[in-house]
Amino acid sequence: MDSRPIGVFDSGLGGLTVVRQIKKILPRENIIYLGDTARVPYGTRSKKIVTKFALEDSRFLEKKNVKCIVIACNTASSLASLEVKKASKVPVFDIVSSGSDLSNFPGKVKKIGVIGTSGTINSHAYKKSLSSNKRSSKVYEIACPLFVPFIEENEVSGSLINLLVAKYLKNLRNKNLELIILGCTHYPLIKDSINKFMGKKIELVDPGVSLAKTLSLYLENNKMLNNKGNGKVNYHLTDLNDRFVKVAEKFLGEKINDIEVVDL
Amino acid sequence: MDSRPIGVFDSGLGGLTVVRQIKKILPRENIIYLGDTARVPYGTRSKKIVTKFALEDSRFLEKKNVKCIVIACNTASSLASLEVKKASKVPVFDIVSSGSDLSNFPGKVKKIGVIGTSGTINSHAYKKSLSSNKRSSKVYEIACPLFVPFIEENEVSGSLINLLVAKYLKNLRNKNLELIILGCTHYPLIKDSINKFMGKKIELVDPGVSLAKTLSLYLENNKMLNNKGNGKVNYHLTDLNDRFVKVAEKFLGEKINDIEVVDL
Repeated sequence: MDSRPIGVFDSGLGGLTVVRQIKKILPRENIIYLGDTARVPYGTRSKKIVTKFALEDSRFLEKKNVKCIVIACNTASSLASLEVKKASKVPVFDIVSSGSDLSNFPGKVKKIGVIGTSGTINSHAYKKSLSSNKRSSKVYEIACPLFVPFIEENEVSGSLINLLVAKYLKNLRNKNLELIILGCTHYPLIKDSINKFMGKKIELVDPGVSLAKTLSLYLENNKMLNNKGNGKVNYHLTDLNDRFVKVAEKFLGEKINDIEVVDL
Repeated sequence: MDSRPIGVFDSGLGGLTVVRQIKKILPRENIIYLGDTARVPYGTRSKKIVTKFALEDSRFLEKKNVKCIVIACNTASSLASLEVKKASKVPVFDIVSSGSDLSNFPGKVKKIGVIGTSGTINSHAYKKSLSSNKRSSKVYEIACPLFVPFIEENEVSGSLINLLVAKYLKNLRNKNLELIILGCTHYPLIKDSINKFMGKKIELVDPGVSLAKTLSLYLENNKMLNNKGNGKVNYHLTDLNDRFVKVAEKFLGEKINDIEVVDL
């Protein structure tokens, strides 16, 4: 047994959709969440600066005595997961590795779409990871840079988001895709609009679900689960305003009472 | 005569629309530009963190031996101009004071619209400043949080931006406004779309133009103009990628060759 908390970091609040999945299957685990709201978004920045920020984020969590670190942010996973794994003394789980794990899909998946921020897509992290496991044939990547600001402004339904979805995904529609990986933690919130445009036959994969499973299996196999009591989440943000709380509760799907503002 | 450079800072690249106006009427002045691209945007963040960032920005410029500081960012001007003025040893010019200076408009202006980021609008900085000079009667403020990401993604014409303009400005259309202040340095780039929706009778005020005039007058009156040679601009950013250079050249209206990446 290991009662230390799980550390989760994200560029901002999107990582709370990952926390939501972890809480679902690991309700006894304590979680330390860090959202770098003072410097969100990461998705438009350079590899150099994202790596610097991600190392600061993981160092903060290590100081909190976490038993492992989850990089919930797809951009940080794509651009800096190697550096974070190298620098960290505890096991590190990144959302891109989980998102490109196709073990839930029997046989070979022929055509996959991946959507994400410019940083994630331009790094080709998903494409490389999917190609290396040889269970997919063709990967189509599309950067959707305006999805994050839309979702943060709660523009998740209606004509504006539908027009934007059509703009970004029109080249995916005639590709006979079997699944689309939602390569950004914000995207599960616009699943309806994406489904409407792409049709319901295409499966939309939320990497947070697969990450929670991988994490659960690892902790179990290594006897690192926390078996006592109910898990608690401690929320840490680098900047706080009223809007952030509202958005955070939307991502998490429940009320948040205590948020600590921290300086990295 | 004072050959020291003018310091200009902004949350990112929008401030280059202000540099453009300064270069127009003060072509001999040297300019040190600082864009905090590692932490852009400021418009959605708290007063506390924007003040911290703005003080770091102005300190950087003071170390470069500037003769004055221009806060080109509307959010930083709205939330932190008092703090920057207090901390700085050189004169500080902020875009909100210039933008709410109505001396170019004869008589009383009855109805004014102000559009800007959430940070700028929620601070009511423009409204307070406009009310204090008693040359306006009624001020309508509207936050337009998605304009900045749209403009940074070059979504400046077409159905998406037109739909967004209509969404934000529909409540201003029946107000018989005489002018609208573009309370964010990005907005001059979507003037056409705003004009199309609001009608061409309404004057769109770019505070950068008025700031350049105020600055020019001050330097002249205080014998601080640089009279020798052609002015040069040194560009400093806290993060750099290919996209930033493209956006920057759009804002500035000319090619940029040398950009130095700095750590604040």
